[in-house]
Amino acid sequence: MAKLVLIRHGQSEWNLSNQFTGWVDVDLSEKGVEQAKNAGKLIKAQGIEFDYAFTSVLTRAIKTLHYVLEESDQLWIPEVKTWRLNERHYGALQGQNKAEAAKKWGDEQVHIWRRSYDTLPPLLDKDAEGSAANDRRYANLDPRMIPGGENLKVTLERVIPFWEDQIAPKLLDGKNVVIAAHGNSLRALSKYIENISDEDIMNLEMATGEPVVYDFNDKLKVQNKSKLD
Amino acid sequence: MAKLVLIRHGQSEWNLSNQFTGWVDVDLSEKGVEQAKNAGKLIKAQGIEFDYAFTSVLTRAIKTLHYVLEESDQLWIPEVKTWRLNERHYGALQGQNKAEAAKKWGDEQVHIWRRSYDTLPPLLDKDAEGSAANDRRYANLDPRMIPGGENLKVTLERVIPFWEDQIAPKLLDGKNVVIAAHGNSLRALSKYIENISDEDIMNLEMATGEPVVYDFNDKLKVQNKSKLD
Repeated sequence: MAKLVLIRHGQSEWNLSNQFTGWVDVDLSEKGVEQAKNAGKLIKAQGIEFDYAFTSVLTRAIKTLHYVLEESDQLWIPEVKTWRLNERHYGALQGQNKAEAAKKWGDEQVHIWRRSYDTLPPLLDKDAEGSAANDRRYANLDPRMIPGGENLKVTLERVIPFWEDQIAPKLLDGKNVVIAAHGNSLRALSKYIENISDEDIMNLEMATGEPVVYDFNDKLKVQNKSKLD
Repeated sequence: MAKLVLIRHGQSEWNLSNQFTGWVDVDLSEKGVEQAKNAGKLIKAQGIEFDYAFTSVLTRAIKTLHYVLEESDQLWIPEVKTWRLNERHYGALQGQNKAEAAKKWGDEQVHIWRRSYDTLPPLLDKDAEGSAANDRRYANLDPRMIPGGENLKVTLERVIPFWEDQIAPKLLDGKNVVIAAHGNSLRALSKYIENISDEDIMNLEMATGEPVVYDFNDKLKVQNKSKLD
């Protein structure tokens, strides 16, 4: 029986300042570092041993993974970093303070952008400063793959191919996997794993730095789900 | 023209206490962490951008790599951890204080074990406490691959297949590579890259945390070698 552990990165500097982050490469706050280390201690206390680790190409998730692996004495585990586990791209909202955005566009509109499954945010122009199209880490991607903004539906559609190709086969092979990623890429994974409806998924909250543990049977059916805290 | 940067891990706790380390998974000292961060700053100041990163499965090298990548704003680079870049296995000397070993076996014998290219150290029994044969990180290796002790010649013979298969093709393809590893695995690589004789190689010293930069032409000939400090 394979285990999958999902960990949302610890608090970032922009979680703290209440800004839309998305693909902007913001670092962990001091509290975020502590949360990540604590997640590693919880993993160690449970005696969970990983075979493979996956994370996004964003610093806050990668550092969370490294703290988790270091604290649980398994920093040597193979790790893969992929843009497919990145946070939802928040389009032109990226960098904006959430309260200011609400003033500019109205509470209701911002609420829809945050909570609708399939409404896109205002898009970021690919030539704009801060566009991923100008970032070396995405240089090997077909430019058509670089989003100007995503909803959860689009996020799920780019997360799941990686899950099916790279992660699910390892779990089916009985290997234990850890994924350190983001609120919305993990929400997309949870939706797919647990078959949660479009309506219900937006109410699923993942706490920063709190490991969620799935136990699977050999058909990749969830046998148990628990949170470590 | 591709660049290769070799970085020996920062000072470890056993460098500090003057113990033979080898495959024992000793952490960086505080000074070692600072050395690793400083190496990253030197890389950043030179504007060197990596495409791939390689390291061993030992914590002190992996953490050195992570500090280097973080300080140079490229923690998102793909990284591979392999036992083939591990430090030379020091056999039954592992864990011993170097001065005490000299008392026990004599200065001259210990000097030979440290400085001979092809003399093996006293071997560590595979059933002994601390043997790599009991370590989960080597569980996927053919048990015959797990050494009881290595000289530099044997170290080179297990480093070079990885170089030829995984690293050289990337340099030939014009990609920049960073390797964070150990005094003797890097010495083995340097011997092979620069075609250094068995006699001369033992005099090559790699300073901890000091990046060595090779520039190659498209036939993988060294065009330039420099140290960043």
